[in-house]
Amino acid sequence: MASEKPILYSYFRSSCSWRVRTALALKGISYDQVPVNLIKDGGQQFSDEFKALNPMQQVPALKIDGIILSQSLAIINYLEETRPNPRLLPQDPKKRAQVRMIADHIVSGIQPLQNLSVLKQMGEKKMEWAQNCITSGFQALEQILQQTAGRYCVGDEVSMADLCLVPQVANAERFKVDMAPYPTITRINKALLELEAFKISHPSRQPDTPAELRA
Amino acid sequence: MASEKPILYSYFRSSCSWRVRTALALKGISYDQVPVNLIKDGGQQFSDEFKALNPMQQVPALKIDGIILSQSLAIINYLEETRPNPRLLPQDPKKRAQVRMIADHIVSGIQPLQNLSVLKQMGEKKMEWAQNCITSGFQALEQILQQTAGRYCVGDEVSMADLCLVPQVANAERFKVDMAPYPTITRINKALLELEAFKISHPSRQPDTPAELRA
Repeated sequence: MASEKPILYSYFRSSCSWRVRTALALKGISYDQVPVNLIKDGGQQFSDEFKALNPMQQVPALKIDGIILSQSLAIINYLEETRPNPRLLPQDPKKRAQVRMIADHIVSGIQPLQNLSVLKQMGEKKMEWAQNCITSGFQALEQILQQTAGRYCVGDEVSMADLCLVPQVANAERFKVDMAPYPTITRINKALLELEAFKISHPSRQPDTPAELRA
Repeated sequence: MASEKPILYSYFRSSCSWRVRTALALKGISYDQVPVNLIKDGGQQFSDEFKALNPMQQVPALKIDGIILSQSLAIINYLEETRPNPRLLPQDPKKRAQVRMIADHIVSGIQPLQNLSVLKQMGEKKMEWAQNCITSGFQALEQILQQTAGRYCVGDEVSMADLCLVPQVANAERFKVDMAPYPTITRINKALLELEAFKISHPSRQPDTPAELRA
């Protein structure tokens, strides 16, 4: 059972799914993808079938080694511990902490505030709210990256932090956030998007990407 | 510098600060505490002085080993890697993944949705919104814990997941969430609150706890 091909339950536009797709790509793990449409049928993640698979009723979920994992960073940490090459966390504990600070800042401090469930509540203020959350998160992030970044978020090796950065910048662009005040974020995002792993995991190139959004 | 006593910047009621206080207590790390009042002066975390220390303008922040860390789970992971005993993550990768799934579910999936900045936006719907977020998060958590729990969240050893559970249950109680549908959460929370590390890190026993809330 442990040797079966992993199955990723994901949605093309979900930023949390994108993080995991990139980790799988960087580590060269081949997998099958099962699309879960977060919009259609009132949200397919709420179906009894999917709920039995992942009680959190969220994507991504990864079936691997005979278990089902959810929560993007928990999945990525599991991949890192069981398939350590290439590594997504530096060896030095202080640098590892920097990577985790940046990843957690995005994953807990920015993304949840601009996700679908919150935006629905905001009604007309939706766009303004999302912009404010991302702006205030990016102001902090820009300052932190000025201290930690090399070519990528922390030094010159791609890390867990980078997997979180790229989808969050894509969200910022969807919400028309002015990126001019964030030259470091912009530079790193551009460098990352040149890498094959980020290209093939991009929302424009997934099995469930609608035709009009395909790259 | 690395041998100086760590300094924790925290707020008595912040659930993220509580997580870190418990980790420090469990690992027997002695530290000084500097209170940052999230309510007073429009939020002391927004002061220039604190911003220079932590650009994320949030508590907790921990000055340790000559660096300043923020984001509760990044701090706890750093402590785990540099002070591994007693461990807060199981040795088995699958069990580690369960711990991380539960911790991330609370830290990214529940807590940010009911924090101060979101609640301010909700106006009159504040209480209802917080209850809904916690209820839907706890429904999933209860199901997951039924599969993973022993005496604590994952098996019989206290883990990172437990550090996140207790403050979230305290938040649920503040928001008057009916806990009857969550017997497993309730049982584990009760068992954890009997441990000395959770008692001394409790919001009712911090240097900045107001007299009327002191235990």
